[in-house]
Amino acid sequence: MSATPTARPDSRPGRIMSGEMAEQPAVLRRILEEGAPRIRETAERIAARAPRFVLLTARGTSDNAALYAKYLVEVLWGKPCGLTSMSTTTAYGARQDLRDVLVITVSQSGGSPDLVASTEAARAAGAITLAVTNNAGSPLAAVSEFHIDVLAGPEKALPATKTYTAELLALYLLVEGLRGGDGAAAKVLPDLARGVLERQGEVRALAARYRFAERMVLTSRGFGYPTAKEAALKLMETSYIPALSYSGADLLHGPLAMVDNISPVIAIVTEGRGGEALQPVLERLRGRGADLVVIGAQSEVDRACAGFALPTGGVAEEVQPILEILPLQMLAYEVTIARGQDPDAPRALAKVTETR
Amino acid sequence: MSATPTARPDSRPGRIMSGEMAEQPAVLRRILEEGAPRIRETAERIAARAPRFVLLTARGTSDNAALYAKYLVEVLWGKPCGLTSMSTTTAYGARQDLRDVLVITVSQSGGSPDLVASTEAARAAGAITLAVTNNAGSPLAAVSEFHIDVLAGPEKALPATKTYTAELLALYLLVEGLRGGDGAAAKVLPDLARGVLERQGEVRALAARYRFAERMVLTSRGFGYPTAKEAALKLMETSYIPALSYSGADLLHGPLAMVDNISPVIAIVTEGRGGEALQPVLERLRGRGADLVVIGAQSEVDRACAGFALPTGGVAEEVQPILEILPLQMLAYEVTIARGQDPDAPRALAKVTETR
Repeated sequence: MSATPTARPDSRPGRIMSGEMAEQPAVLRRILEEGAPRIRETAERIAARAPRFVLLTARGTSDNAALYAKYLVEVLWGKPCGLTSMSTTTAYGARQDLRDVLVITVSQSGGSPDLVASTEAARAAGAITLAVTNNAGSPLAAVSEFHIDVLAGPEKALPATKTYTAELLALYLLVEGLRGGDGAAAKVLPDLARGVLERQGEVRALAARYRFAERMVLTSRGFGYPTAKEAALKLMETSYIPALSYSGADLLHGPLAMVDNISPVIAIVTEGRGGEALQPVLERLRGRGADLVVIGAQSEVDRACAGFALPTGGVAEEVQPILEILPLQMLAYEVTIARGQDPDAPRALAKVTETR
Repeated sequence: MSATPTARPDSRPGRIMSGEMAEQPAVLRRILEEGAPRIRETAERIAARAPRFVLLTARGTSDNAALYAKYLVEVLWGKPCGLTSMSTTTAYGARQDLRDVLVITVSQSGGSPDLVASTEAARAAGAITLAVTNNAGSPLAAVSEFHIDVLAGPEKALPATKTYTAELLALYLLVEGLRGGDGAAAKVLPDLARGVLERQGEVRALAARYRFAERMVLTSRGFGYPTAKEAALKLMETSYIPALSYSGADLLHGPLAMVDNISPVIAIVTEGRGGEALQPVLERLRGRGADLVVIGAQSEVDRACAGFALPTGGVAEEVQPILEILPLQMLAYEVTIARGQDPDAPRALAKVTETR
């Protein structure tokens, strides 16, 4: 019923993005079945070098995957961790002492010159360098001491979807390998992801809510915070709605003034300690009469204005972000379609590619 | 002419914020004259312990000051540095190996329980702990091994202004002390800051541009990037305009799709390598017909639609952020007044303070 009768099936707006979103269960399964042994071997070789500090380098969607890895490194592996400010190397020529530092560079294409330059500089400064990319033949993979292929297959849509979830899963298996875990919590993900992606009708109903929205706020805490940032990026680059993302704690330090019943809020409530830490923020939002939509367990959705219930029973908190982003990718897609735009053709991004 | 004849002088909207903004030259001078020797002594004691990694912990406005310090640490001192994800400690109970790590916690009040808990945990995990606060008698100062007082005097306005510039200058002098520099580049700041703050008329003219804006984008690169983030926070918490901030590099990775002639852009063009690295982004914005306002050198303002020219001749790039934020604080104030709101009374923030 939602197809436009006059459009040919292969020219529908957003067909590239929707096709790649649909591949995600198969990509996750491929990583678990084909990629995991090599990721574990790489992790063991790195762990044997006993790094003491971790730096993560990335941009755009991959930067949100890097932030997820930061939580994993700190919580599961117990190593201090930072995100690189790349310009300190590429613009200012900073030369840091990076002995005992593991530098992980995350990039879909592995081709961005600043990431390559930054990784080369890190290696020269004594770092153990690891590239996590979707292209084993990329310049970034070539200059890094170690490489992990996220096995997502070619990604053609400008809004990255399957490479994001592939990066998350590969980074989870990496950190599990670094700390000597077995990564078993990820095994349920391919089937659960398929179940989520089948629920397009629910997402379309949510999208109607945002068709005329002029701004949105996304919030979460802990492992779900990268989901809030990635969802905001996805919404902005497809629908152009200004979408602001904050950790729940930071939201109370100022931006809450902006939230009221004309600024809808989407909260990603990860089931576990992150979701517990978000409760005071959710109470404040409900108290202000905010239009609160929740992505999380059914019990949390029931206390909000609307939402999308995720399967969380038996799903470890640290892997829930790999499911959380799926309805939000679908939401970005559906909102963009509802606003009469094409998710495959963001206004400015094609030009960026041209001038690179 | 702009004063409301019927209002008593002491009940004007925004009088608390404007009074504190006006104190900034005196605060900067106080830090240079009274604070600098103790900051240098603290820095020398920390440097003698030879930390190898630095973590910065903060929230809200102080988090933007921490980001400025991250650039200083990496570029001037050459140490790898990260910003703390506080929930990994406070929500997840992560216990990291923090030997050889300097943990700097930046907080205006020094009273936030999560900052205190996080700093205590860091000290227990072996870190060298330093608190940078505006309250030497605060719980945070008490639990930290070292303390630096930013000497800004009591701050009463909800939007922080003088404590931000005070934190920046104290952190600059700290990093200068850590690396054995003399901090001489800061000496010009009090007089230059006074000159900037006297130019209210220019800022009021700029504010008219944003009176009906529904969203804004702020961008910069390098040392100016924390200025973009802090200006966005200030605009949001006073005027409630959704203000998005991006490093110039990240802006090209998606959010640029959102920028057009109805999304005004403010670029902070620091004179030096950061501003040079921003040039391709400025060219793209001009090419898209964006409404581009520049805060930076006169030559950069002349190539934009409008702007506010800063004195940059003879001002080292790394201290320019201490001047850059001033016209943007004033802009947040003037836009809020122009929209008929009170910068001293953001809608939700007072309640946050009540429930803390």
